[in-house]
Formats: sequence, C-alpha cells, structure tokens
Amino acid sequence: MQKPSIPKGTRDFGPAQVARRQHIFNVIRRTFESFGFAPLETPTLENLSVLTGKYGDEGDQLLFKVLNSGDFAKDVTAGDLATGSKALLPKVAEKGLRYDLTVPFARYVAMNRGTLTFPFKRYQMQPVWRADRPQRGRYREFYQCDADVVGTDSLLCEAEIVLMIAQVLGGLGLHDFTIKINHRGVLRNIYQALGGEGRETDLFVAIDKLDKIGRDGVTKELLERGFSEPTIETLFALLGVEGDYEQKLERLLAGFVTAGVEPDGPRPDATEETEDAANYRGLTELTTVRDLLVASGFEQFDRLEFDPTLARGLSYYTGCIFEVKINNVQMGSVSGGGRYDNLTGSFGLPGVSGVGFSFGVDRLYDCLEALDLFTATAETPTRCLITHFDAASGRAALPLLAQLRAAGIPSELYPDATKLQKQFKYADAKGIPLVIVLGPEEIAAGVAKIKIMASGTERVLPLAEVVAALTAE
Amino acid sequence: MQKPSIPKGTRDFGPAQVARRQHIFNVIRRTFESFGFAPLETPTLENLSVLTGKYGDEGDQLLFKVLNSGDFAKDVTAGDLATGSKALLPKVAEKGLRYDLTVPFARYVAMNRGTLTFPFKRYQMQPVWRADRPQRGRYREFYQCDADVVGTDSLLCEAEIVLMIAQVLGGLGLHDFTIKINHRGVLRNIYQALGGEGRETDLFVAIDKLDKIGRDGVTKELLERGFSEPTIETLFALLGVEGDYEQKLERLLAGFVTAGVEPDGPRPDATEETEDAANYRGLTELTTVRDLLVASGFEQFDRLEFDPTLARGLSYYTGCIFEVKINNVQMGSVSGGGRYDNLTGSFGLPGVSGVGFSFGVDRLYDCLEALDLFTATAETPTRCLITHFDAASGRAALPLLAQLRAAGIPSELYPDATKLQKQFKYADAKGIPLVIVLGPEEIAAGVAKIKIMASGTERVLPLAEVVAALTAE
Repeated sequence: MQKPSIPKGTRDFGPAQVARRQHIFNVIRRTFESFGFAPLETPTLENLSVLTGKYGDEGDQLLFKVLNSGDFAKDVTAGDLATGSKALLPKVAEKGLRYDLTVPFARYVAMNRGTLTFPFKRYQMQPVWRADRPQRGRYREFYQCDADVVGTDSLLCEAEIVLMIAQVLGGLGLHDFTIKINHRGVLRNIYQALGGEGRETDLFVAIDKLDKIGRDGVTKELLERGFSEPTIETLFALLGVEGDYEQKLERLLAGFVTAGVEPDGPRPDATEETEDAANYRGLTELTTVRDLLVASGFEQFDRLEFDPTLARGLSYYTGCIFEVKINNVQMGSVSGGGRYDNLTGSFGLPGVSGVGFSFGVDRLYDCLEALDLFTATAETPTRCLITHFDAASGRAALPLLAQLRAAGIPSELYPDATKLQKQFKYADAKGIPLVIVLGPEEIAAGVAKIKIMASGTERVLPLAEVVAALTAE
Repeated sequence: MQKPSIPKGTRDFGPAQVARRQHIFNVIRRTFESFGFAPLETPTLENLSVLTGKYGDEGDQLLFKVLNSGDFAKDVTAGDLATGSKALLPKVAEKGLRYDLTVPFARYVAMNRGTLTFPFKRYQMQPVWRADRPQRGRYREFYQCDADVVGTDSLLCEAEIVLMIAQVLGGLGLHDFTIKINHRGVLRNIYQALGGEGRETDLFVAIDKLDKIGRDGVTKELLERGFSEPTIETLFALLGVEGDYEQKLERLLAGFVTAGVEPDGPRPDATEETEDAANYRGLTELTTVRDLLVASGFEQFDRLEFDPTLARGLSYYTGCIFEVKINNVQMGSVSGGGRYDNLTGSFGLPGVSGVGFSFGVDRLYDCLEALDLFTATAETPTRCLITHFDAASGRAALPLLAQLRAAGIPSELYPDATKLQKQFKYADAKGIPLVIVLGPEEIAAGVAKIKIMASGTERVLPLAEVVAALTAE
C-alpha cells in the first residue's frame, strides 16, 4: 500500500476545471477556424535528433528524455559512466517529449513538403513538457495553442493575428488588454541611429530587460557593453517616443532621418502595396498593418500599442513581433508571436517564411479566475437529476430519462433507490440545476415534480409535458 | 542538416485526419455527457511508483520511463551498471508515461477521496503510451476514451453502458455491430458445474482463447491442465447454449440446476430489485440488465448478444463484462469493459467498486475509413475563399471577410495578389467549397461572383446580399 502522488509541476484537472479549460480551447479553436486555420496534431514523443539543439543549451537541459525500451543499459560501459550523464545520454535515450509546438510544426512541414499546399495555415493545441523548476504559474506539463501561416509574406497575416487576439480575448470576456506590436526592422533602425555595428544582439538583450531592470539598469548594462552615454541618450529618445500608433510612427521616422539612418528600402518581394511606401521597412510594414486593420473594421486601436521597446528576446523573429498583456492582473504575457524568415532551415528546407503566434492557456485560465470571469462551476454536465424512490418508480423513470437525453438535456437517474435527502445532496454537490422527483405518488398521478435547485422553487407538471417544458427553457 | 523523422509507432495527424478524429471524439463526448459523465484529465507523466506493478510483468516492460532531469547518472556506480538495466532503472528514472486511463483514475479517486461526491461518474479521453512492437492497427501512442461510475452497485450502470455503446456507434454511422455481454458469475457457475476447484483461472485463460485457437485447441489445453474429457464435454455444452438472450439465460439456468451447481444467492447488498430474483447471481444480473434496457426503450436486442464464452482475459472484472465488434470489418474489438470490486485497493482505499468501459478511437477511425463512412475530407475548416486580385481590391474585400466570419462562416482572403488560377488551385487542393471572386470589375459594379467548386456553377450577387445568401445555405 502506497500513498499515491503526481509528479511535481503536473496537475489533475477535475470536472469543473476541464469544463473551464474546454471553454478556453473552444473560443480559441472557433477563432482559429473562423480565420481558416486548419488543425494539426503531432506526437508527444519526438526523436531527440529533432529536438536537441533547437532551444539553446538551457532548452536541451530542460527537455524530458525517454529511456529506450528494453535493456536500455546494454551498450553502456563503465567508461561511458565515468564520462558523465551528458556523454551517457545518447546511449540510453533516443526520444524526448514535445518541448514546444514550433519545432514539431517545422519538422512536419519539412517532412511533408511535397504534399502540402502553400500558404499553409495550421493551428495546434497540445501540451508541452519542460523540466523547469515548478513555481506559481509555471508547470512542467502545460498547453500551448499556436497558429502559423507559412509560405506567404502578406502583411494581412499580421493584421489577422491582431484580429484573432482581440476576438479570443473578447470571446473570453477579457476586454481590458493591451496588444503590443513592434518590428525587428524598427529595432534595427534604432540600432543604426546609434551608429553601432555588429552589436545588435547586445542591444536587443539589454532592451528586452527594460521591463525588469528599468532605464537605469539598461543604461548600466549598455555602458558596460561599451555604448557611449550620448548613444544611450539617443537610444532612449527613440525608444521613448510618445503618442498614439500613428504619432509614434511619424516621430520615429523623423528620428531616423535626423540620425541619418540609411533607408533599407522596400522588401525584395515588394508588391504595389509596399513599393511606394516610406523606405524604412519596419515603419512601412507597421503602417500597412494598421491600414489593413482599419479596412477590416478593427475598432480597438486603444488596445493596440506600437511599443518600440518590445524585443521578444533572442528568438528567430525577423519582422513584426507581438506580445499581449491582460491589464489589472498580475500575470506575464498571455500571447505572443512574430514573423520569421526561416522556419525549417535546420530540417533541410530553407526559405520557409511565415508568421505565427501562441496563446498560453494556463495563463488565460489564471487571468479568468483572478477576474472571476468563469461562469460554469458545475462538477458535471448533468442538467437534470431524476430521483430514485424504489425499484418500480426507478424503472418507470427510464422512458423520461431517455426522452430528456434525446432532447439534448444531459440527465441522470440516481443509480440507487436511497433516501431522497441523499439524492438532493448529490445534486447540490455536483451543481445539477434541476431535480425531478418521480415517486410512486407522482407516477400514480401522471405528474413529475420539478425543483430548481438554485431558488428552491418547485412546480408540478404532467409527465408528458416535462421534456417540452425543459427544452423550451 | 538532418532528415527529420518521427519515432516508430507514432503519427502526425494532418488537418483532414484531425477533423475526422475530432468527429469521433465529439460523438463520444456528447454521449458521455448526455449520460451525466463528467470529464477528468490526468497528467501524461505519472510517478513510476504509481504505474509499476499494475499491469503485470509485461506491462512493466512496456511502460515508457522518463529519465530524471539534470545529472541523471550521478548516483549510478559501476556496480549498479554490472547488475543490469532492471536494477539501474530506479536510480535514473522516477517518472513514466500514462499507460492506460484506469490506473490514473484510481490514483485520482484515492487522492481525492475526501472531496469527491459518490457515485462519481467520470469520462476521460487522453492518449496513452506503450512500448509495444508497432504493427498494423497497433501504435505506441494512441487514444483511449473511458467512462466509469464508481461508488454504486446499481445495474442501471451496466444497462447504460449498452445504451451508450449503441448511441456512439449509431452516431458514427456504424449500425452493424455486436455488443457481447457476459458475467463473471456465469463463468464461475460454469466452472462449478464442472466440479472443479481452485483452477478457475486455468479455465478462464483457456476459454479466452476460444476465438483464436478454436474448440480443438482449447480442449487440448484443458486436457493438458488436467481436466477430464467428460468435464470438457459438459463445458462446451454449457458454453454452446443456443438461442436469443432470454433462451440462453433459461438454458444455462437449467444446465446449472442439472449439474447441481450451488446457487450463490442474492448479492449481500441486494435491494428489492434483486432479492427475490433467481439465485445464480450472474444470470440474475444479466436478466435485470435486459429488463432495464427494455424499460429504457432499447430496441437493438438483435445487436446485443449474451455470450457465455466471453471472458475478457484475466483482468480485475467481477460482474458483467462487455466487448464490442463492428461486423464486416477486419478489426479487433472497438470497445470493452466490465464491473470491478476493488479499483483503488492498491492505493490504500479498499472497497471502491464500479463499472466502466472504453472506446478505442484509433480502431473506430480505421473502421469508419474501411467502411467509407467519413464525409469530411477538407484540409481546412475554411468554407469560403475570397480571391485577391490586387492591393486595392484585396482591401475592398476586408469588410466582406469580416462579415462572413462574424456570420459564423470560416473564410479567408487569399493572402497575396497573384494569378487567379493559382488561387483556385489553392481552394481546390484544400477542399474549400466556395470561391468569391471580387476583382476591380465586380467592386465597381457592387457585386461578387460566387463559384461553387464542386459543380463549377457561378452566380453573381449584389455585394450587400452575399453574407445573407451564404448564411441561408
């Protein structure tokens, strides 16, 4: 006999939690599908040859590795053992658990290049695993919901990401949010305005910490990295431009011109849409995204903030980048993403560009809970419990039970003939809203007594009218 | 650069496959919920202390074990290595992947005994992993869909399992099926009729192979195990009773009486329902289940077969057992289950009895495919593609696009202004049923041309009427 437990950083989801999580998944799925994204599912187990080296050294550490089945240690020698875990690993494990949804997607696109029709719009809602130190809001097993379009450079995709984020959050009742948008080209132009060369990464890393360590901290770090004080002054003047989306675009443009930043010109693939536009690619594209949103009827520009300080770490983004915060909740970003130039290069298929973003379901859940926005709290889908008085009336209830279910009303007959009080307690504990009392008296009279649990009100209806009455409600 | 691959026995599911699988999950989920089963989800990772020893020696072999994170080999000595993989395992792995849904459910019930309201009706639809040799129809990562009721002995649960199986299969369009039902008590009585003692397991194991090795094979095996020829004769007479459900019940009853089988009497927990019934528990309960089905309006008795040879291996079942075959398809059982007395005993909570069953989604999928019963074949949820002629008409299409989506019609504007032929090819390859042509001419005339891809027919509608017309269809 053992006391059972579950691994650190994992969770059971009971009925009420699953129902609430399903609500989030449904809103996201409906939105993704409404925009024409098609579902993809990849295996939990991936070959370590696919996963390793894709997430940096830290990521490789955080991968869960699966022991080879059978006699896993048969090829291990005492010499291997002496060299330590890292050298030993390839001899005992060749598979790992999915770490994110992007690498499996890239692997899928590379493997199926011959049969896929591009542009390929896929969404994926699956759990991922990371051997991270568990803490509040950080789990070892958690869900990601990604949507990506690959095979097109159209900025319509960026505009639609904004539309989808707003639709999902609105659909969840989360109306007070901020979608931050920036463009790697803007960061590059800012860097050029500083006159630097070859230290772009240093700058991005420092800017990315602005939220955490503040202006003083970033200044200190940039000084240490060899940036001059006037340069840093210029940097913060550019990063600190004020105003709305349009004003910031104008002021940055002025700043770039003043600083003598070389225009990078239209994109090599420029269409009519971009060729005659201003010649700083980042600003141009951010303008186009805004115009496409206006044309699409987007009305929430107060929730869309062009934030030149948004950097999104060191990831592989090359164009627009996004990050979403729910206001008035202590919670990291609930969504983020951006455009990339080379999704599948490491799988031998270069040049697959695209744009994608991701929702963190566990964070959305925590926000909805913090803001008390969940309505469903029942521990069961059952809407209607029929009481079980004795064997005969229990059987007499079976046709009604079948009719309720056929009418789309999830229903139960309490399985045992036992005290009514116990049956009402059951309905109460599970959050079943309606109880139908059907004892020998009711059956003899051809009626049923319906009790609304929330209010305690009761009414008596002819048995033949019960289903129609409940269906109408 | 590497050629990417996925592990043996795992699969990617592309858009059309996910949509088809979702259809199966939806039918099962709707049915389970309609009967008042509430969803539960447990972690993929379970402690090996929970999993090990629950599935027999073979099961322990087939468990996927997850390497401890960090320096997993730090406690391993050369001496450990010499003792081999089995002795090494506890030092390098403490977690494994979910192997079925029953053990995690038992673990959950034991861990949450204090807060759960019984009877507890839960369903669970999640993947499981087994390091089995992959072969046709057998995967290393596959889904199970289980429903169990614990905390009641009511035979209503058994009757409802039959109803749910019939409803799910009907909902999937699988109308030609056979639900086999038997009762461990019937097998016990048959065993008693043979006059044997203490070799019940030998008998069950042999009977379980009847399908595979036939009567001759079973006879040979029983002779080897020391059963006499007349005994085996009696056995096959009892197993071979003919007729419909009721006739078999009657004939077995007569056989037991003739053979002098001691009646085992009503169950200790007998209610009115069972106390005055015939005294062979298996036959009694099978009679009650049939009566409850009749009272529920079940009309498919031609698809419900009482099969005294059904044994369901050596699992922990103690009452009714079920197994379901789709006829006219080469495929093992697609569903099975039964009643058990002691779900959570190994987790320190004895006496939790219940009844449950499981659908194999991958087998249902294969049956539906073999019988050509899938209707959805599209590679996208998109119902409507708007063509993109040039930048101006692309923008002019955005309000229509937003209206279509708001009306619940998943829609796309082709992201790039490119050749119309390419855009139609895209719609065709993805299975998008409708294409709306909206070029400069149409926009100037305030109309849209709608092409139905399947028939090739086109019609022209005023732009303002498009959404209403498509919504009506």
